[in-house]
Amino acid sequence: MSERARRGRPGHDQQSVLRVAVELFNRQGYDATSMGDLARELGLTKSAIYHHVPSKEHLLESAVDEALDALTASLDEVGATTGLDAGERLRAAVRGSVVVLVDHLPAVTLLLRVRGNTPTEQAALQRRREIDHRLAEMVREAAEDGAIRGDLEPLLTSRLLFGMVNSMTEWLRSDPDVQAVADAVTTLAFDGLARR
Amino acid sequence: MSERARRGRPGHDQQSVLRVAVELFNRQGYDATSMGDLARELGLTKSAIYHHVPSKEHLLESAVDEALDALTASLDEVGATTGLDAGERLRAAVRGSVVVLVDHLPAVTLLLRVRGNTPTEQAALQRRREIDHRLAEMVREAAEDGAIRGDLEPLLTSRLLFGMVNSMTEWLRSDPDVQAVADAVTTLAFDGLARR
Repeated sequence: MSERARRGRPGHDQQSVLRVAVELFNRQGYDATSMGDLARELGLTKSAIYHHVPSKEHLLESAVDEALDALTASLDEVGATTGLDAGERLRAAVRGSVVVLVDHLPAVTLLLRVRGNTPTEQAALQRRREIDHRLAEMVREAAEDGAIRGDLEPLLTSRLLFGMVNSMTEWLRSDPDVQAVADAVTTLAFDGLARR
Repeated sequence: MSERARRGRPGHDQQSVLRVAVELFNRQGYDATSMGDLARELGLTKSAIYHHVPSKEHLLESAVDEALDALTASLDEVGATTGLDAGERLRAAVRGSVVVLVDHLPAVTLLLRVRGNTPTEQAALQRRREIDHRLAEMVREAAEDGAIRGDLEPLLTSRLLFGMVNSMTEWLRSDPDVQAVADAVTTLAFDGLARR
């Protein structure tokens, strides 16, 4: 990024521009949003917007990287925590993904709508697949350890777990009780609905 | 619809046009797809496409109604089945939603991407909310009946259940083993991952 782009203009820093852009992308669709739309939303001229951001794709990349980096860091943290067995690690990983979703709701929402139409989007999908496989590996270890049932295919289980978590972007509003939501997800996923 | 639109042209009937349109909407986004794009995909001129369909919105409406009608019919059928207790009804409803998703995968995929930008989309979201509430009512009845745990909020549970089911549109390919997928979803949701 050029010195001029980094410096920005009074009233808008990189973070606030990104925040407004992600909100706009989520509201009206990334493809349907032009840099002109974003400039209007920020109260800037169409040429002034380029003092803040090099391109629309750069904004998308920053947002999806924010979400993906947070998810990766959350899984890394679970992996680095000592004293957890494989079942506890899996449960902590699912709980951590709920916390990341709540903490980075706009970025995660945008990430989940990416369809792979550009190299940036394809790279994001590739990172999502890697994260799915990391969770699948945790499912496999927990099953081998006897902590969870062994009759479900690990990658399918991983996708259904993330599917349940990710679906919250559809209805979650800002400032939810993150612990209550994480409790509900882990209770449903690990303990099941049926009375024991 | 006019007589001319109903009659269509040789080589394309209403159903095949709808099928191609939904596939195209899912691939490149509804908003980003023009009637010209659809004509090209069908090998028609831009004016000939209007012999087949009155508008792009009409195609969207037909597709989301297909998905919503199938979901509604599935819940109606569960409600009309005699000899099921409330817990069995809920399990059958979740299983039925998996079957509908598999049987109507392109239409359900399109439905789930609708954001409410037009009256047609708002009507679809409203119908989705009504279906969420019907499932929530089944959750409530199953909890009152003692068939499922009572410590999870019914609407939250309903949303997480549909969230898990709906997330399958992200990775399911055509011709899956629908019974195996439905088994995995109901096992995870009702019995939970943890060993009993």
